[in-house]
Amino acid sequence: MKRKIIDMLKDATGNFVSGESIAEKLNVTRTSVWKNIQALKKFGYDIESRGKLGYKLNRIADLLLPAAIQSGLGTKIIAAGNRMVYKVSLDSTNKLAKQLANAGAEDGTVVVAEEQTGGKGRLERNFFSPRGKSILFSLILRPRCLPKDAPKFTLMAAVAVANTMQRFNLPAQIKWPNDIMFDGRKVVGILTEMSAQIEKVNYIVVGIGINANIAPEEFPPEIKKIASSLAEINGGEISRVDFFRALLEECDKLYRVVNEEGFQKIFQQWRRFNITLGHEVKVIAADTGEIFFGVAEDIDEDGALIVSTANGRQTLYAGDVSIRDR
Amino acid sequence: MKRKIIDMLKDATGNFVSGESIAEKLNVTRTSVWKNIQALKKFGYDIESRGKLGYKLNRIADLLLPAAIQSGLGTKIIAAGNRMVYKVSLDSTNKLAKQLANAGAEDGTVVVAEEQTGGKGRLERNFFSPRGKSILFSLILRPRCLPKDAPKFTLMAAVAVANTMQRFNLPAQIKWPNDIMFDGRKVVGILTEMSAQIEKVNYIVVGIGINANIAPEEFPPEIKKIASSLAEINGGEISRVDFFRALLEECDKLYRVVNEEGFQKIFQQWRRFNITLGHEVKVIAADTGEIFFGVAEDIDEDGALIVSTANGRQTLYAGDVSIRDR
Repeated sequence: MKRKIIDMLKDATGNFVSGESIAEKLNVTRTSVWKNIQALKKFGYDIESRGKLGYKLNRIADLLLPAAIQSGLGTKIIAAGNRMVYKVSLDSTNKLAKQLANAGAEDGTVVVAEEQTGGKGRLERNFFSPRGKSILFSLILRPRCLPKDAPKFTLMAAVAVANTMQRFNLPAQIKWPNDIMFDGRKVVGILTEMSAQIEKVNYIVVGIGINANIAPEEFPPEIKKIASSLAEINGGEISRVDFFRALLEECDKLYRVVNEEGFQKIFQQWRRFNITLGHEVKVIAADTGEIFFGVAEDIDEDGALIVSTANGRQTLYAGDVSIRDR
Repeated sequence: MKRKIIDMLKDATGNFVSGESIAEKLNVTRTSVWKNIQALKKFGYDIESRGKLGYKLNRIADLLLPAAIQSGLGTKIIAAGNRMVYKVSLDSTNKLAKQLANAGAEDGTVVVAEEQTGGKGRLERNFFSPRGKSILFSLILRPRCLPKDAPKFTLMAAVAVANTMQRFNLPAQIKWPNDIMFDGRKVVGILTEMSAQIEKVNYIVVGIGINANIAPEEFPPEIKKIASSLAEINGGEISRVDFFRALLEECDKLYRVVNEEGFQKIFQQWRRFNITLGHEVKVIAADTGEIFFGVAEDIDEDGALIVSTANGRQTLYAGDVSIRDR
């Protein structure tokens, strides 16, 4: 119902719509209309009420509400139908996504929140995400694959973000495996988790946290040196709704490519955006904690990083990479 | 308290112990002793009560109760301390183990049940497990490793079972990756699951289902041709308690080897028990469903099966293997 009310107000393009006419069209009471308008205001919609004139939508709030995101969205799997869960505030979108996935949530379900109170990045790092200024969501994917294939979906997600940035004329750089960088600072973090058997992945949850409209001075001091945002790259705020919609479409497109053809095209695109290959790197392996230096050569068919070192080629499946010759 | 009562009755080696003396030693009321005795009887302990004489343990039930399993058990991690959860009946031990692991259960926690009402084997196959005749348990492991390392713990579990069988003078054969076979029929099934991030495994749950004291004629007709049991191999029932205790000790020993030295020794032992390598095999890959034929050459450093086919070497990470030249 809220979605229908918003659509009616949008259609009026800034003019008042009487509560009576809304009630009539939706076949509900005027009190019910009034209650829903109050709820929409709480969500952040700027709706003006004036006696008999009724209700007017002054400005469409840049909230990632299903009504705003799904209306006319060109996706087939991701966030399609009722596969979208919206919360104003969440501990962590990955956490809720895992719960929903354990309870059987469909392939392509999206969990989105305006803020995270306990968001984590890779390696348990905290993720700064002030309310309404980030784009925070998790994708639940159920591909037919083995546990060893899961990291590739992380690269896929990074490519989807990079493609979306390109659509908004923002330069996109990917540091292996999935950090989106600007000027050596991080703009987007991706945290991928899974539940699996040896024979098959039960589900993958890809959590994506985007610093959207955070101005440089808004970052806490300890993060300032290592973080950037879409707004900083753009030199002004972007529409979170538009960006998120475009990103979901990119995710959907790439996910369907993967399901039909595998990862070859994704990896080609990844290489195009990457800033790691061909450079001297310092590596900390995630499993052993081992540190080594070398030149990042390429990614292999598993998405792992091949590094040529003084002791020969090393394959890095997960870990921290810093680029040394820049 | 139940454990202490059982210990006291055991110490009496078939003689009566008065309720009063038990109550005194444990500093509880006689009513409390009586209630606990009733509970122990329900568990299956054969305890005789006779007026003033008190209680006598006639025969130690072959139940996998923590009291029976953990008393004097020589393990350091697995089932150590309070890391053992016992249920008479469970849907599936893996399911409860995953719930406990999600809630933070410790490395080495064991979940054991006398029967499973919804037990599954690999590839969602049902697992036949009549009450009190199987050994059904799940290990919760929290090794420091990557998702791609998880399958190796499945091989480790198979080796632990094989070593235990050897201690009981039962011949043990492992079909890749982890089926314990006798006369071409399956004796033990292992189902490994995990929760992971790209950088690290959160936990691995290794579910082990052993056909212990199931006589050949007790199997349902459709399973009879493909299933065997320890009792069939042994030519008579075995002590489930003794076997389970020995198996937990083997699991503990191998797990500590893995944590300290990696999988090299485990793989050596696996090769010794295996009946797959060197044989012509038919393979169905778990991820693609692809079928191919070839000769099983070896396992690689990931525990994957290397098969030489007419089209070159193939690496099988998960799937079904049947041996053709036997």
